[in-house]
Amino acid sequence: MKIITVSREFGSGGREIGKRLADELGFAYYDKEIVAEIAKRHALDENYVRGALDKSVAQSYPLHFGRTFSYSAGVSNTSVKLFAEQTKIIREFAEARDCVIVGRAADVILSEYKPFNLFVYASMESKVKRCLERAEQGEEISERDTAKMIKRIDSERKKIHGMISDTPWGDRRGYHLCVNTTGLEIKEIVPGILQYVNVWFDSQK
Amino acid sequence: MKIITVSREFGSGGREIGKRLADELGFAYYDKEIVAEIAKRHALDENYVRGALDKSVAQSYPLHFGRTFSYSAGVSNTSVKLFAEQTKIIREFAEARDCVIVGRAADVILSEYKPFNLFVYASMESKVKRCLERAEQGEEISERDTAKMIKRIDSERKKIHGMISDTPWGDRRGYHLCVNTTGLEIKEIVPGILQYVNVWFDSQK
Repeated sequence: MKIITVSREFGSGGREIGKRLADELGFAYYDKEIVAEIAKRHALDENYVRGALDKSVAQSYPLHFGRTFSYSAGVSNTSVKLFAEQTKIIREFAEARDCVIVGRAADVILSEYKPFNLFVYASMESKVKRCLERAEQGEEISERDTAKMIKRIDSERKKIHGMISDTPWGDRRGYHLCVNTTGLEIKEIVPGILQYVNVWFDSQK
Repeated sequence: MKIITVSREFGSGGREIGKRLADELGFAYYDKEIVAEIAKRHALDENYVRGALDKSVAQSYPLHFGRTFSYSAGVSNTSVKLFAEQTKIIREFAEARDCVIVGRAADVILSEYKPFNLFVYASMESKVKRCLERAEQGEEISERDTAKMIKRIDSERKKIHGMISDTPWGDRRGYHLCVNTTGLEIKEIVPGILQYVNVWFDSQK
């Protein structure tokens, strides 16, 4: 079983790295598929599921979580249930085939499967630039608001990660490789990362 | 001017990575050469210079340093003078030719030259193993003492770095690439790092 998890700062290009690694390796690629699967199984709206997972879980802390996430049978909170469901689905995906999973704290959730954990980051300036380049035509968003949004999203990621892991989100010790994409073309750096990943997988045999 | 700085946890194999990168790229390699040069210019013992730089500078803080290192003409403390001398020599080396510089806070000292900053780390178990493998024949040192030594040395590195930089030592944001060598053969991961470094240098043109 070969698993790569990609954790990333918003706007750093982590998703593109994950997708390209999956393509190069012939691995499955899971990103939005996870939330979509939860939504499908529970007949819920995808945006609702994403919102509940990204925000409410963090807000419900420390009510429902200790340092370690526990599946308390009696917990009624929807977010907690969805988080448990997400954990289950991520494990199902990981057991089904070699894969790359982007985000969703998969590095922690799958730790017993010994995944390769990649962290992708960049300077704020570079992340804002990447976000603005990808904004839809006609979408008006200022650099300042984009930077604010990036900070807010990453702070939620950090919070959720902190609930289920002792190693802080973005701390090198939780990852096998941390890659700064500032000023770089994603497609150009993938071969180097791939070489590293392959050496790592070989070392695990 | 192409400069690579290698910062590393003690025993993580950072020096070997630095040496191999220098060999592959045809760059000069500076490590012990810096202390040796200071010793030579001032007719001092190398061990004395190293000790003064590694320990006393940290101890003299915050007496002689603000957040930014300053070359106060009147400062009499030997460590401070040696640190200033080291800064001068590192800059001389960096200006003379393309190079790899291991340790000595060169990432901060050379920041205006825009070096590629690499951070190398590993699990404590892996670092202890690497240190014990390299211990001289007949040298008796326990795993526990080795781990203690590693922690002590890295804590000094962290302290010195903290005196001259706002970004903590080992914090991803201060580096372009952070590489976890746990369980890996250094020579096998160098090609991937090299590919990354080359893309980065190309992006700087």
